[in-house]
Amino acid sequence: MSQRPLDILNKALGSSVLVGLKGGREFRGKLSGFDVHVNLVLEEAEELQSGEATKRYGTMVIRGDSVVFISPAR
Amino acid sequence: MSQRPLDILNKALGSSVLVGLKGGREFRGKLSGFDVHVNLVLEEAEELQSGEATKRYGTMVIRGDSVVFISPAR
Amino acid sequence: MSQRPLDILNKALGSSVLVGLKGGREFRGKLSGFDVHVNLVLEEAEELQSGEATKRYGTMVIRGDSVVFISPAR
Amino acid sequence: MSQRPLDILNKALGSSVLVGLKGGREFRGKLSGFDVHVNLVLEEAEELQSGEATKRYGTMVIRGDSVVFISPAR
Amino acid sequence: MSQRPLDILNKALGSSVLVGLKGGREFRGKLSGFDVHVNLVLEEAEELQSGEATKRYGTMVIRGDSVVFISPAR
Amino acid sequence: MSQRPLDILNKALGSSVLVGLKGGREFRGKLSGFDVHVNLVLEEAEELQSGEATKRYGTMVIRGDSVVFISPAR
Amino acid sequence: MSQRPLDILNKALGSSVLVGLKGGREFRGKLSGFDVHVNLVLEEAEELQSGEATKRYGTMVIRGDSVVFISPAR
Repeated sequence: MSQRPLDILNKALGSSVLVGLKGGREFRGKLSGFDVHVNLVLEEAEELQSGEATKRYGTMVIRGDSVVFISPAR
Repeated sequence: MSQRPLDILNKALGSSVLVGLKGGREFRGKLSGFDVHVNLVLEEAEELQSGEATKRYGTMVIRGDSVVFISPAR
Repeated sequence: MSQRPLDILNKALGSSVLVGLKGGREFRGKLSGFDVHVNLVLEEAEELQSGEATKRYGTMVIRGDSVVFISPAR
Repeated sequence: MSQRPLDILNKALGSSVLVGLKGGREFRGKLSGFDVHVNLVLEEAEELQSGEATKRYGTMVIRGDSVVFISPAR
Repeated sequence: MSQRPLDILNKALGSSVLVGLKGGREFRGKLSGFDVHVNLVLEEAEELQSGEATKRYGTMVIRGDSVVFISPAR
Repeated sequence: MSQRPLDILNKALGSSVLVGLKGGREFRGKLSGFDVHVNLVLEEAEELQSGEATKRYGTMVIRGDSVVFISPAR
Repeated sequence: MSQRPLDILNKALGSSVLVGLKGGREFRGKLSGFDVHVNLVLEEAEELQSGEATKRYGTMVIRGDSVVFISPAR
C-alpha cells in the first residue's frame, strides 16, 4: 500500500525529525506542525554538523522551499 | 495538537526573531508584520555574523523567497 | 508505446530506487509513496557516495523540487 | 498592530531606500514606485560596496525576484 | 513550417536521445516517455562524461525542471 | 506620485537601456519591446564588461527571468 | 512601434540564432520552432566556446527555463 508524503509528516507530529536543507545544512527538532507547502514548525530545534548539535534554537519555522528531505527519528 | 507555521509567526509579532536567509546571512529584529508569502517586516533590524551584530538597520522588509528559517527569541 | 513518468514511479512502488538530487547527493531506498509533485517517500533510506552507503535513515520524505532523477533498481 | 510588508513600501515612497539583492549586491536610491511582485523603481540609484557608492545610475527598475531586502533610510 | 518542442520529443520516442542537465551532467538513453513538464523516461540510461559512458542505469525518470536540452541521436 | 515599474519600461521604448543579469553580465541596447514577464527586446545590443562593449549583437531577446535590473540611459 | 519578444522569435524562424544559457553555455542553430515557455527547437545545433563551434548536434530542444537570451544572426 502506498503512503503519501504528507501522511508521513502527519504521523511524525510530536516526534523528532531530521531536516536536510538545500546547501547541506541540517536541523533536528520535534515536528509540531507543517502545511501543504511543507513549511515546517520544529520545537527545541538544533543545527547539526556531522551529526553533532552545534547551535540550539527554541521554536523554528522552516520554509518548505528550502527543504530537501525530512526523516523521522527511528 | 499541531501548530501551523503562520500561527507561529502570528504569535511572534512584536517579539525579537532570528531570520536565516539563503546563502547563510542572518538578521535579527522585532517582527512587526508578515504576509502569506512569508514576506517579513523587521524593526530595529541588525545583521549578524557568528551571532554578533555587524550592521544596524531601521525597518527592513525581507522577501519570503529568500527566507530559510525564522526562530522567535526564547 | 509511450510510458508516462508517473507510471514508472507507480510500478516501482515497493521496490528499491536510486534518487539523484540537485547538487549531486544520492539516496537509495524502497519507494513506498509519491505524489504529483514527485515528492517521494523512501523506506530504509541510505545516502550513497561513489555508490557506497555512508549514512542510514529510516523513513525519508524527499521534496520533488530537489529531485533530478529516479531510477528503479534492476 | 501588525504592518504589512507592502504598507512599508508604500510609506517609503519618495524616500531613500537600501535594497539588498541575491548574491550580495546593494543599491540605494529614492523609491518612486513598486508593484505587487516587489518590482521596484529607484531614482538617482547608486550601487554600494561596503557602504560606499561605486556607480551611479539614473532611474532603475529592479525585478522583485532578485530582491532580498528593502530598508528605508532612517 | 514551425515545429513545436513537444512534437520533437514525440517523434523521438523509441529512439536514443542525449539529455543535458543543469550543472552539466549528461545522460543518454532510449526515450520511452515524457509529459508536458518535460519529465522524461529513459530506458538503458547511461551517464556520460566527455562523451564516454561512465555509469549504467536501467530505467530512469528525469525531472523536467533539471533538463537543459534534449537532442535526438542522428 | 508613484510610478509603476512597467510604466518606466514603456517610457524607455526607443531609448538606450542598461540591463543587468543574474550572475553579473550586463547588456546595453535600444529597448524596442517588452512583455509583462519583463522579457525584453534590445536592438543593437552589446555586452559590457567594466562598462566597455566587448561583443556586439543585432537584435536580442532577453528572458525576464534572468533580469536583475533595467536602467534607461540618462 | 513596440515589438513583442515572441514576435522576434517568430520572425527568426528558419534563420540562425545564437542562444545564451544560464551558466554561460552558448548554442547556435537554425530556429525551427518554439512555444510560449520559450522552449526552443534548433536544427544543426552546435555548442560554441569563445565563438568557436566545439560540438555538433542534430536537432536540439532547449528548455526555456535555461535560456538567458536569443539573438538572431545578422
